Amino acid sequence: MTSTDTPRKDLARKPRGFPDKREAVLHAEQTMIAQVTEVYRRWGFEALDTGAFEFADSLGKFLPDEDRPNEGVFALQDDDEAWLSLRYDLTAPLARFAAENWQGLAKPFRRYAAGPVWRNEKPGPGRFREFLQCDADTVGAGGIHADAEMVAMAAEAMRAVGAAEGEFAIRVNTRRLLNGVLEEAGARTSAARLTVLRALDKLDKFGAEGVAELLGKGRMDASGDFTKGAGLEAAQIKSVLMFAEAGRATRAETIEALAKAAGNTEEGRAGLAELEGMEVALAALSVPARDVIFDPSIVRGLEYYTGPVFEAELLKETLDEKGRKVQIGSVGGGGRYDDLVARFTGERVPATGFSVGISRLAAGFAITGDIETLDGPVVVLNFDKSDPSVALEIATELRRAGLRAEAYMGSSGMRPQMKYADRRGAPAVVMAGEDELAKGTVTIKDLKVGAAKAKAIKSNEEWRESRPGQIEVARGEMIAAVRGIVEAG
Amino acid sequence: MTSTDTPRKDLARKPRGFPDKREAVLHAEQTMIAQVTEVYRRWGFEALDTGAFEFADSLGKFLPDEDRPNEGVFALQDDDEAWLSLRYDLTAPLARFAAENWQGLAKPFRRYAAGPVWRNEKPGPGRFREFLQCDADTVGAGGIHADAEMVAMAAEAMRAVGAAEGEFAIRVNTRRLLNGVLEEAGARTSAARLTVLRALDKLDKFGAEGVAELLGKGRMDASGDFTKGAGLEAAQIKSVLMFAEAGRATRAETIEALAKAAGNTEEGRAGLAELEGMEVALAALSVPARDVIFDPSIVRGLEYYTGPVFEAELLKETLDEKGRKVQIGSVGGGGRYDDLVARFTGERVPATGFSVGISRLAAGFAITGDIETLDGPVVVLNFDKSDPSVALEIATELRRAGLRAEAYMGSSGMRPQMKYADRRGAPAVVMAGEDELAKGTVTIKDLKVGAAKAKAIKSNEEWRESRPGQIEVARGEMIAAVRGIVEAG
Repeated sequence: MTSTDTPRKDLARKPRGFPDKREAVLHAEQTMIAQVTEVYRRWGFEALDTGAFEFADSLGKFLPDEDRPNEGVFALQDDDEAWLSLRYDLTAPLARFAAENWQGLAKPFRRYAAGPVWRNEKPGPGRFREFLQCDADTVGAGGIHADAEMVAMAAEAMRAVGAAEGEFAIRVNTRRLLNGVLEEAGARTSAARLTVLRALDKLDKFGAEGVAELLGKGRMDASGDFTKGAGLEAAQIKSVLMFAEAGRATRAETIEALAKAAGNTEEGRAGLAELEGMEVALAALSVPARDVIFDPSIVRGLEYYTGPVFEAELLKETLDEKGRKVQIGSVGGGGRYDDLVARFTGERVPATGFSVGISRLAAGFAITGDIETLDGPVVVLNFDKSDPSVALEIATELRRAGLRAEAYMGSSGMRPQMKYADRRGAPAVVMAGEDELAKGTVTIKDLKVGAAKAKAIKSNEEWRESRPGQIEVARGEMIAAVRGIVEAG
Repeated sequence: MTSTDTPRKDLARKPRGFPDKREAVLHAEQTMIAQVTEVYRRWGFEALDTGAFEFADSLGKFLPDEDRPNEGVFALQDDDEAWLSLRYDLTAPLARFAAENWQGLAKPFRRYAAGPVWRNEKPGPGRFREFLQCDADTVGAGGIHADAEMVAMAAEAMRAVGAAEGEFAIRVNTRRLLNGVLEEAGARTSAARLTVLRALDKLDKFGAEGVAELLGKGRMDASGDFTKGAGLEAAQIKSVLMFAEAGRATRAETIEALAKAAGNTEEGRAGLAELEGMEVALAALSVPARDVIFDPSIVRGLEYYTGPVFEAELLKETLDEKGRKVQIGSVGGGGRYDDLVARFTGERVPATGFSVGISRLAAGFAITGDIETLDGPVVVLNFDKSDPSVALEIATELRRAGLRAEAYMGSSGMRPQMKYADRRGAPAVVMAGEDELAKGTVTIKDLKVGAAKAKAIKSNEEWRESRPGQIEVARGEMIAAVRGIVEAG
């Protein structure tokens, strides 16, 4: 900056949809990434990071939200005019990597990845344009047991981040069943298929009646907005709904119901066989019964899926900061995408994967209050602005003993320094003023005990007398005394 | 993809300068980030992540490489036409965050961050456009001891990632000393200042003679390329060089030499006082003598620095994969930037920080071979393509015992499965074919022992007889046997 620049307060802000994250949220997210990747690693996946950028054409156009610029992707032109895009998920770049390096890879190629993805969507409350995903994929595995492994591992990942039995479910469907239903309903164009799938996706939200309207002429919502329907006949609507509502209490019963509802197409039969095969594999993987549900209404938006699709759902209802009931819903998903590598090579490479939405999951746990606030550092107050050596020495000594500690770095007096320590969540402050230096002591204030006792004190005088939580110890006993306070916390 | 798309092999590639990273490199980088952030946390800094995007105007134009599009930054236009940029470092976004949230922050605000930054530079060998940085900053601290803390912490971070005493140095200079020298040399325009600073920056590379040419009329390199000089007079060149070469064996001697060479300007005196104050603080922080060097030739490219500047350098010479001597050089740096927050608020907020170049550091350790290769998972071979339940069950059992294990997910026969296990770096494979199932046993092959013994075996017959590293155990003893092999590795 040159001194002639005019300060611009209007620039001290962030573009919408890109959150700043402070320590508690970051800690929750990083802990979850560590927990999920630990599961992925234990199941034999290895780390790969492909970075933020790909050629726009490499990523392809698979996002459901096509009304946005560049189909919902952030894109820019490189020096040589080539269009680059920021990845919108971790799967499309993996397909590019696998295609580029296929000859040299041990196959099947099993990789995990964790990192930010970017979507150029309309930002809103809880709807971000940059968020974290944590994925595992097996590329080069066509068997249904590879999908079952993803489903079982997804359940284990949910447990690893702290969801107990019954608090989550992995919902499973397959695109092939859906293909069969779409075929019987006569939805053959890609637009017609999309309208029917979008209608199915709303079963949770609008119920059977609302979906029936969306499958037929269309649906008017409470505000008077009209959504044009898929234009199916009554008989077709009935058969689609019978399929969508074939979910039963157990997976075996659902398979039975689907055997009747999935119709008579080749795709429908293939889809049913996939679920039957998955049931066998889930048993071999000892997946607890309640963890996985076969749910014919699961669609998954991304257009590259070709077989089984899965969705991880947090079931437990919680209250938000205003006491309203909130259900987090979907916190991850995945499925089989046998054609994604073939886009590059022409050879069909079967692949399946699962993605945890870390940002969404962490937001869910934040709502429930299950997010840890970390202790701040021990703060060593500074009594000498012109030479802060004493404070620096004490902080150094505390750190060398393995304690988290800092010397106060600002230029304010004692009261602001105490306030600073308080706001940082310091478990203790250490003071060595002239008195203490002369005596070879330090004064240590236990801020947690202090805060508790302070509530019970009424007058300023009483305060000065009792000095809650404050002790004076010989300098040689400082480490032990501070450690005692920190560890008691 | 629709089936009518033509596969495009040309798209199975990555834009230049954005590396794909496999497990060994990622593990090295993540370990270093953990080591460095552990130091930052212990010194009292708290985590903040501001994400990838900022308004282009918020970031400002501080990069030294001004010949590139958008001054070396990746930028794109949002829906509302506003220009967004990907962060080129972690400091400029911190200044924006601090300005935006100043009222609500505990001050000084001490934060650390780790993550990717993007620079639209010309990619080349070892020169990437996306790389990882790990920063700590104190915003709202004007004292020289805050800079000294950064320098001391930088030294501790270097030790934490594995650099021993004498293998690294934190080189310290201050812009105010440089300001004094520039003033005496009569370099008053920003262009003239830049030319002199760039010349100083080349002292290591070209020596005093080359720098004298760059300060004077200019310099012709071996290839005949001519770099125009700063056009200083002989006396001025002499005084600039005397300053640049004032570095001595100890910091105290360097301060003495600088007292003579730093000239007689107010800025020069202020700069000298900064180094004197830092020396006192470094002593209070017990920084080992060899860790920190006062080096008047250190410049640092970024234009927002206003006071002390530091550079972390890996000193140890190593050999690259072709046996050539390589010195990694700079792996981090930082300094004081008192005007960066004022760009937004108009109020001067003193600030200082340090950044470790994680990608560069990891690359350095990769060259020295100090990068760990991780063991792969135990691989359970699959003898039944139509029903892989046995392999799934065994892998599940191994994982529940805490072992890293996978059932083979491909569709190939035994030999490719063994080859797969080998390429994945599996410590062991587990086999349960018809024989084993009938007997209630599993066969376990120790791939490490196997590999060692295999070298000593000459004929195929001998191989079949001895089956190196292979044992058959009762199913109930499998976990203990596999654990023994994995942990022996």
